[in-house]
Order: sequence, then structure tokens, then C-alpha cells
Amino acid sequence: MANQPAAAKTAITPRRDEDFPEWYQQLIRAAELAEPSDVRGCMVIRPWGYGIWENMQRRLDAMFKATGHVNAYFPLFIPLSYMQKEAEHVEGFAKECAVVTHHRLDIGPDGKMRPAPSAELSEPLVVRPTSETIIGATYAKWVQSYRDLPILINQWCNVVRWEMRPRIFLRTTEFLWQEGHTVHESEAEAREETKRMLDVYETFVRDYVAVPVFTGEKSESERFPGAVQTLCIEAMVQDRKAIQAGTSHFLGQNFSRASGIQFQTRDGKQEFGWTTSWGMSTRMIGTLIMAHADDDGLVLPPRIAPTQIVIMPITPKEETRAAVLEAAEKLAAELRRVSYAGAPVEVQVDRRDLGGGVKSWEWIKKGVPIRVELGPRDLESGNVAVTRRDQPVKSKEFLLTADFVSRAAAMLESIQQNLFDRAKEFRDANTRTIDTKEEFYDFFTPKKADKPEIHGGFALAHWNGSREVEEQIKADLKVTIRCIPFGASEAGTCPFSGAPSPQRVVWAKSY
Amino acid sequence: MANQPAAAKTAITPRRDEDFPEWYQQLIRAAELAEPSDVRGCMVIRPWGYGIWENMQRRLDAMFKATGHVNAYFPLFIPLSYMQKEAEHVEGFAKECAVVTHHRLDIGPDGKMRPAPSAELSEPLVVRPTSETIIGATYAKWVQSYRDLPILINQWCNVVRWEMRPRIFLRTTEFLWQEGHTVHESEAEAREETKRMLDVYETFVRDYVAVPVFTGEKSESERFPGAVQTLCIEAMVQDRKAIQAGTSHFLGQNFSRASGIQFQTRDGKQEFGWTTSWGMSTRMIGTLIMAHADDDGLVLPPRIAPTQIVIMPITPKEETRAAVLEAAEKLAAELRRVSYAGAPVEVQVDRRDLGGGVKSWEWIKKGVPIRVELGPRDLESGNVAVTRRDQPVKSKEFLLTADFVSRAAAMLESIQQNLFDRAKEFRDANTRTIDTKEEFYDFFTPKKADKPEIHGGFALAHWNGSREVEEQIKADLKVTIRCIPFGASEAGTCPFSGAPSPQRVVWAKSY
Repeated sequence: MANQPAAAKTAITPRRDEDFPEWYQQLIRAAELAEPSDVRGCMVIRPWGYGIWENMQRRLDAMFKATGHVNAYFPLFIPLSYMQKEAEHVEGFAKECAVVTHHRLDIGPDGKMRPAPSAELSEPLVVRPTSETIIGATYAKWVQSYRDLPILINQWCNVVRWEMRPRIFLRTTEFLWQEGHTVHESEAEAREETKRMLDVYETFVRDYVAVPVFTGEKSESERFPGAVQTLCIEAMVQDRKAIQAGTSHFLGQNFSRASGIQFQTRDGKQEFGWTTSWGMSTRMIGTLIMAHADDDGLVLPPRIAPTQIVIMPITPKEETRAAVLEAAEKLAAELRRVSYAGAPVEVQVDRRDLGGGVKSWEWIKKGVPIRVELGPRDLESGNVAVTRRDQPVKSKEFLLTADFVSRAAAMLESIQQNLFDRAKEFRDANTRTIDTKEEFYDFFTPKKADKPEIHGGFALAHWNGSREVEEQIKADLKVTIRCIPFGASEAGTCPFSGAPSPQRVVWAKSY
Repeated sequence: MANQPAAAKTAITPRRDEDFPEWYQQLIRAAELAEPSDVRGCMVIRPWGYGIWENMQRRLDAMFKATGHVNAYFPLFIPLSYMQKEAEHVEGFAKECAVVTHHRLDIGPDGKMRPAPSAELSEPLVVRPTSETIIGATYAKWVQSYRDLPILINQWCNVVRWEMRPRIFLRTTEFLWQEGHTVHESEAEAREETKRMLDVYETFVRDYVAVPVFTGEKSESERFPGAVQTLCIEAMVQDRKAIQAGTSHFLGQNFSRASGIQFQTRDGKQEFGWTTSWGMSTRMIGTLIMAHADDDGLVLPPRIAPTQIVIMPITPKEETRAAVLEAAEKLAAELRRVSYAGAPVEVQVDRRDLGGGVKSWEWIKKGVPIRVELGPRDLESGNVAVTRRDQPVKSKEFLLTADFVSRAAAMLESIQQNLFDRAKEFRDANTRTIDTKEEFYDFFTPKKADKPEIHGGFALAHWNGSREVEEQIKADLKVTIRCIPFGASEAGTCPFSGAPSPQRVVWAKSY
């Protein structure tokens, strides 16, 4: 039975409370989610990690389509002149990008391969860091009249932003994402779209990734370069830092002016289109890990898990082996007829010829929601041994097979709900309403100087709207405004400046 | 009613028999499938074209998973040294590729953006033209023992091969594809996998894309560089040329030796893994177009169509408008409850405020399998007017609404089957068994020298296995061996050399 390695108390070393960043790296390795590649900053997403991404894609894509969007695909490369045109846009983030300068390799005088000097591009190409400019140039051709609007298009693709300090899933040079780009006839419609897509993200993260978020607007200094308004969802992870889990931008007419997206209005005038863009990336896998995983490995919300139930046949004796394997496959077939969250339950039978403990620990580390053990004695008793990943590793419930099958969907939903509740409880416990500068600075200062320590959380504090206050706090504490939350209207006094404040904002350290 | 523009006899100008290549370009534009971008050789895949690709992906992906494969994701960039290592591999095709040399932009002395001289990469990176090398380097880390095998991984991604003469969907600098990469314990297992995946492609193309193919092996000169054996499926399109619609390569130990994929065998020895790779790309959309489309536009096989049935409400009078729209939505809802090919029927109600003729022609050009018109008089009679895209544009069948709903799935399947039958009939009619050099040369020589002319087809002729014969015929006629088909065993005499031949092979001009 599930033995832990004798030397370690937990399957992942170090534990979260010992060294959170190192725990994160070790967990990704132990759960076989991803690994660094030989190309600096670029990751290999392994099948288990990619399976999680496929589920995220499938769920999000269905939500995009249900809100009237279609998918398309735009080029990987952006001419340098487009970047130039979009100067303000570029200023913010796009300088660190991969630049293609040659279109052929040849063999140099030293016998080694090199970019062929005869094949230098007359205009360098940038590997897309985001696609506003190239998509804008295309939309400018498509849009002539108000009849061509709205354009509601999404793209699933890879993007590249050169990272000096890469971290798997959180900051990688290449990552996968979706980027929605829409054009509308009026400001009101575009603002509505911006909010609608933020709501889609909030719903997705809550109902599938089981993470509660604050929703709101970014302050000017954290806004997407070129946007009029950036809306975001902000989650808290287990080291109490914030992570931005999705953004939706109202771009006004800034990008349509730069790209020339112009249309004839209903009353015959020429006007620039009102555009939005919104994105969510493989960073969400990092959020998922840091929100739910524990010291024994990943903990997957059932609605996102590539495998929801793993069945481990235990076959100590050759003479009962066939019967046990047959019973395991039969159970799997029955479970696959059960529907959960709109699809058949995802079941895997682990027939590998490995010890039960090794197998079991592998699935614990991978975070499969339900593990089932089935051995010769269970065949006699008609039972199966069931363990939920959200409960202690050694807790085991013996259930009649038929009972387990009939309860499987409810059990998965109970795990899903439990993970959300735990994450919400954790966030609420670490979110503090703060009214003085002293308490604020104390909240965000670790108490032990000699080792990394989980501290702080979300502070709800007043703010007078001044950029100087933001900058001072960032310089002092590395704390920033994560969002100006919707629906907060209690006016007060900014504890940093003494000036009046229209509402509290969310402050935190962040990824 | 569906009026054609008065000046033209067909919706697409020129017709196929007038100028096939130009018809192809015009069709892609008219059906809104894709368009060239400002980046030379790179295309924008528009929503209708991308919807076709999504359906191809969904169907193929399910087939990959049913045969035990999982998806993963590997980096876009390949270090130049990997290409160097794989010299034979590169020799064949990978010299024309996009090379990244800088990782930052800055502003030059002339005030213009440029690749920052201070950010030149110490080792240039190649944008993947295919991923054998980077995936091989990763597998080398994963594989230690026979217990780690087989590795059965597929990747959906973009790849880049610089094209001097781009053609949308057929030859583009960037394209989308899937590439499977597997490692096996034994040669037999790897050969079996190679054939299994070819069978998957054949089944997919036959059952979904409705195109019959020849399956077989490539001759040495057409083989994938570095492969021991390349299997392929070859389709005929309407200008009677061949198009390679998918390939599956048995790589022997060539790539595992270059990448160092080594494992401990069951009897304790060290051996190199046996690998395969197999791919299908957005080129399949080009195949689909050229196999089925006609002079009025695209003709989509229902199992691949993004919309299978379009309902066009006809609302000439304001007072009946609401009732007609309501009836259209009700019909759509009923049709969506019908299952076809394992999924609900895809229905769209075109509520746009456009003339019936304009609308109808738009859907004809886009190739939607079934068009339904529903107007005020139909409400009274309880009928709908139904037109199948595989039948003449003006043919119209009036059906009681309930009858149409109950027959919809069968009608879609009948269109699917009909498209396959037509394509097969066309191919068979243009496939000729040839036994003399004279007839062969005559078959592949156009009769009118002054304008492009559809001619030739597939020739089944004997071949003595000599590369010189292949090269001579290629030089004379631009005709090559498309495949050495499986299952042909009739021996004979090569008409070109007079030497003995073990079997007939398939010769054709090709894309």
C-alpha cells in the first residue's frame, strides 16, 4: 500500500512552507507537467500538462462560441514596420522579441551551418508577441461598412516574448494562448464586449479551475500599452501572492486609428472602429498548480483533469490476475457511461506491471481526483477502495462497486466544489482591510529576514488615484495595485497621502 | 430566387476548364477561406477556412487518441547546432527556413526600429520546419529502458518553410499541421506503427474528406530525407494531378542515433530506439477544394463542413417577418436535435438583412451541403424549399418540414457518399494502365500548346526500379512516381528500360 519514501515526509521536497518557488519547480517535474528545453526560456509541455491545456481550451472555446465568436488564424510573423507604426503599443512590452533576419541556412567557410548572408531579409520579421498589429492590418481590409461589424474573432496560437528570467508556465519565452480581437460600431458595444469576455474568464476560472478571483480594472500604470481600459481577474495562490489570470482590454479607437480600420456609419459618415482584445494563456496552468497543489503533488479540479478516475488493478498472484484485470476494465466501462460536467467520465486503467505503491504515488503526484484500487480480495467482497485526492493520502473508503459507479459523478463534483471552497477560504483568510500605512507596511514585510517566508496577502486599502503613491509602495515593498474592484463604492481616506479616496483597491505582491 | 450575376455563367470566373490555377485562387477568395497576408508566403486563414480545419483536427485527433496517442507541445525554435547534427535530414528540405538572430528591438541612429545590435544571439535559432531534432533531443532524456517505450506522442502546431512560390494551402511559408513522433522497442513495432498511421490517414480522407486515395510507398528519390521508408496516400484532384495528402515515415534508427535515443533492452543490452513520424497539414484544405469544388464555388463534404445546413428566412413583408424568423429558429432547434456522424447537426440561421439571391449565392460559394429557404408562403403550406449543394443550383425540393427534419441526417450522408463516389469515378476514369513508352508520353502531353489544358491523370505502368528512368521522365514530362502501391504483384516489363519490373507503380504530375 501506498508507501511514501522513508526519508521524506512528503512526496515533494521542499514543502510549500519551506521554499515555495523551489516546491513549484519540483512539483512540475514530479507531476510530469513540463520541463525546460535546450532553447533558453522555451518549455516542453509534457502530455499530462498538455492534457490539462486541452481541457482548458475545450471549455473556453465552447464559451467563446456560445458568445458568438469564431476562430481564425493569422501569421506568426509581423513586419518590423508594423511594430514601428504601433510605437506606443510597442513601448510597453514588445521590445524583447525574437527577430527573424534570414530565410535560409548555408554552410560557411568553416564548414558550419549559418544564416546564409545572401538570404538576409530586406525587412526583418518579428515573431508575434501579440497580434494586434497584424490582425488590425487584416481587419482594415475587411471592414468597409457598419454592415461588416461586429467582427468577433479569436485565435489559438503560440506567442514569443523574450524572457530573461524564465519560469515554467509563468514566464516563458514561448507560450500558448488565445487572443480575441473584436471590432464594433460603437464605444458602448465595445465596452460591453470587454466586460462580457472578462465575465467569461471569471466564470471559467471559477467553475472549471475552481479558483475565486477579484474582478476589476487596472490602474493606469498596470494597463496594457495602448489600451483605454484594462479589465482583469486576479487570483490568490498559496504563497499569498496575486496572479493575473486573464485580461480584457477596451482599446477605444487607438488601434483602429493606427491600423486604419475605418467604416461607413449608418448615417453615411466615416468612423474608426472600436476594438477590444482579450487573452488567457498557459500561465493558467501555473495558477492552477499554485492554487491547489499540496506537498504531495498536484491536485486537479475534476473538470480540468485529463483523467478523472484512475483504476489500479492489484495483481499479486498470477492465478487471479486475469480476473482482476477484467473486473478493472468492466468498472472502467461502467464509469465511462456516467456523465459528468457534460461529458463521459474520463477513466484510465493503469495496467502497468509496477508495484502498487509506486503506481499510487505517481497518480497522487499527478493529482488525479479519484484513485481506485481493486485486488483479488475486492473481487470476493464486491468492494473497491476509493481515495479522493482532496482528502488525506491514507484515507480510503471501501464501497460496493455499484455504489461507487452510481456516486462517481457526485463525488467528482464534491471534489470540484471542495477545491473551490478551500481556495476561497484561504483567500478570504489572507485578505485584510487595512486603514493605516503602518499596518499596510507591516502586512507586507516578512518577519524572518534569514529565509524565504510566506507572508502578506491581499490588502484592501484606500488610494487617492495618484501614480506617485503606487510607485513609492512598489519601490518600498514590491506591492502593486492588482485591481480596482467592481462594485466597491465606500469612499474614504488614502492612508498613504491623506487625500480622499473613492473606493478601496486590491494591493498585493504578484507574479 | 438565387439569381446568378447576369454577365457570368458561373459564380467563379474563370471556370476550372479555362484556367484551373486561377479558378483555385478565385474560389478561395469567393468562399472566404483564406487570403495572403503582408508577410510574403504567410496566409490568413479566415473563419470559414479555419472552421474546416477545426473539424479536420477534431476528427483526426479522436482517431489518434483511439490508437493510443497523446498530445504534447515542443518548442517553436530549434538551435542551429541541432540542424548541423542532423546533416542528412537537413540536406533534403530544411535550408529554406526562418532564422532568428536577435532577441530585442531598439531604435537605430536613423530613429527607426531595428534588431538591437547588442542583442544578437550567440547561437541562431531556426523556426521549426519539422520537429524531429528538437523532439529527439527531448526523447533522449525520457527514454532509459524498454519500460519507457513505446512513446506515442502527437503535436498540433505551426511550422515554417520559406517558400519562393507560395500558393494558399498548398505551399505556404507558415502552415498548420500535426506531427506524430513515436519511439518503439523493435523494428517490427515501429513498422507496424508507420502502417497504422497511414491507415488512419486513409480512413480519415475517405470517410471525412470523401476522397479516395492510392496508398503505398515512395520511391527512394521521393522519400523523406533520413527515412528508411516513406508511406503516403495520394489523391487525384480535378486537374488530374496527384496531391500527397499525408505521409508516414519509418525512420529506422537513423534519428535515434543522431539524437541519442537509447534504451536498455529486456535482456540488458543498450539499443537505439526505432522511431516513426507522420504528418498531415492545412494542405488537406487545398486537396478538399480541388477534389470537390465546382465552377460555382466550394462543395463541402458534410462531415467536415462547419455549417451543414443553412436556413435562409425570406421576409419580404414586415407583417410576416416575425413569424418567418420564429419558424426558422424553430426548425433550426429541431435539426440540432438530430445526430449526424456522431454529433448534433450544425445549423445556422442566416438572419442578415440581405436579398435572398445574394445570401443564397454566398452559401453556394461557401459550399454548405444543404440550403433551406423558408418564406411566408411556406408557413401556410408547411413546406420548406431544400437544395443540396451536390445537385444543380436551381434544383429545389419542397418538403414538409417534419419530413425534412426526419430525413436530414440521411440526406447529409447521401451527399457525403455522393461526393466520394463522384471523386472515385473521376479518378478511375482518369487512371490508365499503360504498357508502352509512346502511350505514356502521349498521355502526359497536352494537345493544345497555346493555353493551359487539363490532361493526363494517373498512369499505372511498370518500372524497373531505376533512378535514371525516374529522372528522365521527370525531366521530359514533369511526371514522377507518386507511390509504389500496396498489394500490386503483377510482374512485367518496364516500358522505359525494357528491364523486368516486379509491379506497376502510380505515375502522375503532382502538387
